Amino acid sequence: MRSTVGWQVEGPSTTLRRTPLERRDLRPDDLAVRVDYCGVCHTDLHAVSARDGEGGQPLVPGHEFTGVVTETGPSVTRFTVGDPVAVGNIVDSCGGCAMCRAGQENFCHAFPTLTYDGIDRHDGSTTLGGYSREYIVRDRFAYPLPAGLDPAAAAPLLCAGITVWEPLHALGVGPGTRVAVAGLGGLGHLAVKIAVALGADTSVVSRSPDKVNDARRLGAHGLIVSTDPEQMADARDRFDVVIDTISAPHDLGPYLRLVAMDGTLSHLGHLGSITVETTDLLVGRKRLSSAGSGGRPATAAMLDFCAKHGISADIEVLPSARVNEALDRLRRNDVRYRFVLDMSDLG
Amino acid sequence: MRSTVGWQVEGPSTTLRRTPLERRDLRPDDLAVRVDYCGVCHTDLHAVSARDGEGGQPLVPGHEFTGVVTETGPSVTRFTVGDPVAVGNIVDSCGGCAMCRAGQENFCHAFPTLTYDGIDRHDGSTTLGGYSREYIVRDRFAYPLPAGLDPAAAAPLLCAGITVWEPLHALGVGPGTRVAVAGLGGLGHLAVKIAVALGADTSVVSRSPDKVNDARRLGAHGLIVSTDPEQMADARDRFDVVIDTISAPHDLGPYLRLVAMDGTLSHLGHLGSITVETTDLLVGRKRLSSAGSGGRPATAAMLDFCAKHGISADIEVLPSARVNEALDRLRRNDVRYRFVLDMSDLG
Repeated sequence: MRSTVGWQVEGPSTTLRRTPLERRDLRPDDLAVRVDYCGVCHTDLHAVSARDGEGGQPLVPGHEFTGVVTETGPSVTRFTVGDPVAVGNIVDSCGGCAMCRAGQENFCHAFPTLTYDGIDRHDGSTTLGGYSREYIVRDRFAYPLPAGLDPAAAAPLLCAGITVWEPLHALGVGPGTRVAVAGLGGLGHLAVKIAVALGADTSVVSRSPDKVNDARRLGAHGLIVSTDPEQMADARDRFDVVIDTISAPHDLGPYLRLVAMDGTLSHLGHLGSITVETTDLLVGRKRLSSAGSGGRPATAAMLDFCAKHGISADIEVLPSARVNEALDRLRRNDVRYRFVLDMSDLG
Repeated sequence: MRSTVGWQVEGPSTTLRRTPLERRDLRPDDLAVRVDYCGVCHTDLHAVSARDGEGGQPLVPGHEFTGVVTETGPSVTRFTVGDPVAVGNIVDSCGGCAMCRAGQENFCHAFPTLTYDGIDRHDGSTTLGGYSREYIVRDRFAYPLPAGLDPAAAAPLLCAGITVWEPLHALGVGPGTRVAVAGLGGLGHLAVKIAVALGADTSVVSRSPDKVNDARRLGAHGLIVSTDPEQMADARDRFDVVIDTISAPHDLGPYLRLVAMDGTLSHLGHLGSITVETTDLLVGRKRLSSAGSGGRPATAAMLDFCAKHGISADIEVLPSARVNEALDRLRRNDVRYRFVLDMSDLG
């Protein structure tokens, strides 16, 4: 086993503590990655909060990170020591099912191995995430970080970026598509940047009218204030695609009403059940979908697209020792738009 | 006012009784229609059942009927006395909103006038449906019944037919599309016939294995038994379109799992709320929609298509005096596949 150090929750606590961690020895197709930057995702917050008073396996969050290859297993050919790489929220899959064969490892019928709190397919251990100085990853699930992308600002692309890319791509967003992005946070601000770069006529829907300048700076044509019934009524049936990135539970009805006939509302970043009124889907012929992460080909394509268009996240970088502060502030939505932990303080 | 007779529920009863009814005098753009055949729709059953112990306005159900024009208002040009006509579940709309202008009067922003239990836009009266010998309808909402369609078997096309046509059409079903129809009842059997005629590779999903012969006779390639986990697993991700016509409340998860990536489950004939697990939408990138009825252009196109392909409903015709028996048997799903009331016994 290899030794590293990371930020871990243990027992029924929600405070992350600096802890020595063990990593597996390299398998033939493994890379060792020195983690330099790791984004702080809402999922991390949920995972940590779920330990409150409950306990469970030790938890090291973190599933959007960038770093440098420090060692390679003997059968690795795509990477060499020193290569900048990026890793997202999936680190393995069965490879044989129809979804894996179609390059949609995120939908692996045997369930993909998650970057943390997943079960390693070979040794049965629980995976420990990227809030650490080293990560061992199967080469297929590491991505070359394209030149020109800042490694800190690129880290959130590996979860937030692919999560918004996947529905924009699946729904055929391109020049002239009318896109509304509901919620301007970690996911939302990347959805706006990518939709704009795809050529879409993009608007933001937010309850905060003061985000109008941010929306415009990101390339959106305007902002619809969700708490203003008149503005919402004016926008009825107006968007081919609505990307709903609102993390708090909410009624989908008002957002479905913004969707044009035969258009789609894609609800992101939510797990659990959703209830919709049939009439909200039926009247005006709307479609509802959901998205989260993507497969290997889409992740690689998204990184190339972002490099070409100079897209990365708007971030606030904190030394990893301030991880608990980052999670606290994320809980209060006090970040524009993504925290990234700088792991260099772990040595 | 004009006098006719029909089958009505009054007060907190669920028994329909033969009752004299008043119809409005013809407005300039009205037709008087002698109702010959009226289909018995699940909606009728719900509307009647809702009166149980509750009372409310007198109710005359019936919103899929065929008959003959007996009189026309002075500005009517599309019909003359003696023309065979068909009327569906919408008899008026605002005509000015974006949906009406797009020929989707069923989504009229000011709400379409329903054929029964609706509010007439001109005199504010409650509309009384097609379980009667005469109906007065605005000419725009009557459809010429194409030659070659049996007037009794065509009646259900006006609600069940358009309800399945609309999603098949909106979802681009055509040669080679893989379509599954869940539930083989009034809606389902028409969905199979129309999907097959559109060239789709069509399967039926039913909990009744004994419907396999019916499924084949209707043109389907086979039947998937929904209670057989192995058959359902084999069919995973296999259909571009799943038309869910199951009228009882049910978990959409098993049916969403049949949908291929970027395909759609269209849930028909249900009002109220639906709850779905996000993962059932997310995993494999599925879309959920809902449908019920259609606009004027689609209704006319559906009738032409059905006439061209010799499609009408498989029906059991009962004299209208047996309407209560029809509703009782429909409640027990004891009909293959649609009851049609013969109104000639009303004189």
